[in-house]
Amino acid sequence: MNDLTKQLDFILEVDKLKAIYRRALIKADNNRFENSAEHSWHISIMAHILAPYVEGSVDIPRVTLMLLIHDIVEIDAGDAFAFDTKSVLDQQPEKENAAANRIFGLLPEHQSEKFISLWHEFEQAKTPDACFAKAMDRVLPLIQNMQNEGGSWSKNHVLKQQVINRNKYLEKSAPKLWSFVLEQIEFATEKGWLKTG
Amino acid sequence: MNDLTKQLDFILEVDKLKAIYRRALIKADNNRFENSAEHSWHISIMAHILAPYVEGSVDIPRVTLMLLIHDIVEIDAGDAFAFDTKSVLDQQPEKENAAANRIFGLLPEHQSEKFISLWHEFEQAKTPDACFAKAMDRVLPLIQNMQNEGGSWSKNHVLKQQVINRNKYLEKSAPKLWSFVLEQIEFATEKGWLKTG
Repeated sequence: MNDLTKQLDFILEVDKLKAIYRRALIKADNNRFENSAEHSWHISIMAHILAPYVEGSVDIPRVTLMLLIHDIVEIDAGDAFAFDTKSVLDQQPEKENAAANRIFGLLPEHQSEKFISLWHEFEQAKTPDACFAKAMDRVLPLIQNMQNEGGSWSKNHVLKQQVINRNKYLEKSAPKLWSFVLEQIEFATEKGWLKTG
Repeated sequence: MNDLTKQLDFILEVDKLKAIYRRALIKADNNRFENSAEHSWHISIMAHILAPYVEGSVDIPRVTLMLLIHDIVEIDAGDAFAFDTKSVLDQQPEKENAAANRIFGLLPEHQSEKFISLWHEFEQAKTPDACFAKAMDRVLPLIQNMQNEGGSWSKNHVLKQQVINRNKYLEKSAPKLWSFVLEQIEFATEKGWLKTG
């Protein structure tokens, strides 16, 4: 199989991410659920918009590519809800690893290696690029929930401390945004959208 | 209004692109129509996958940002079908210009100027970056239609020559892909998915 055939296979395969639905609602579209493809688009733009708040050295084009591909594993592994039970979440890494190998493995070797490695970097969230990418992935649902009277938080009895923990990537990579997020979490707790225990 | 408030307004505003539907169908999701947000995600990844075919100097991160934002004007202007009547298409540029000014104008000035200028560059399709971006925007529907027995071409009696003209951006920016596209167009014409007159 030549490279172009492999690349076209991959391009057609990732179409399936448009059929993976998340818990967030799209207000502008009759409150239907958001899918992971359009979510990936949204946070990729957001990384550019919020780039001025980054402290230290972050490569925004690299972050963008991470965000574009970060959810592709869900085609096989499904979207795990962030606040799901431990037993569900515990099985997710193994499923996602296998998915990364299968789906990025459709590409010619020099590309599959690059994408698998970039996806692992995102998942491990240790480099400055991956931390900022994770932060973008996690702050958009907060912004969406704040617009939607608590949205998926209210519906799923999410705790204030869980949201603080999920957004901690911002603390180092963009402290000014981190302050904003803490204010929003306080407000959401006062409103009863987030629980304290 | 401070910068962050403006940026959050923009981030929430562009959510509406998820409610702008195109003519392409998502096979993986019961053949529903594709929206412009997930389409933008798909071609942004595709630019990275097909980058090895570029001849000459193209800045893929810049192309990616162009692709991420290129359809945002549709929030106000709607999605014009590529093969629509002349009178419909003639009105589109004015609507899209006004939309670019309003929507990117939500951002702080240094960002709105950058995005408006990048969007114009994409629309004019004269620079190598914009040509490759346009090529990506136009080749994905071809790949989708080829998988879907002619898809939106068959349904809308599209002419072979129209598809050749729309994809010509590839001729200079990625000649190997251009040859592939011409073969696909020949095949689609033999199948009767594209008309010759």
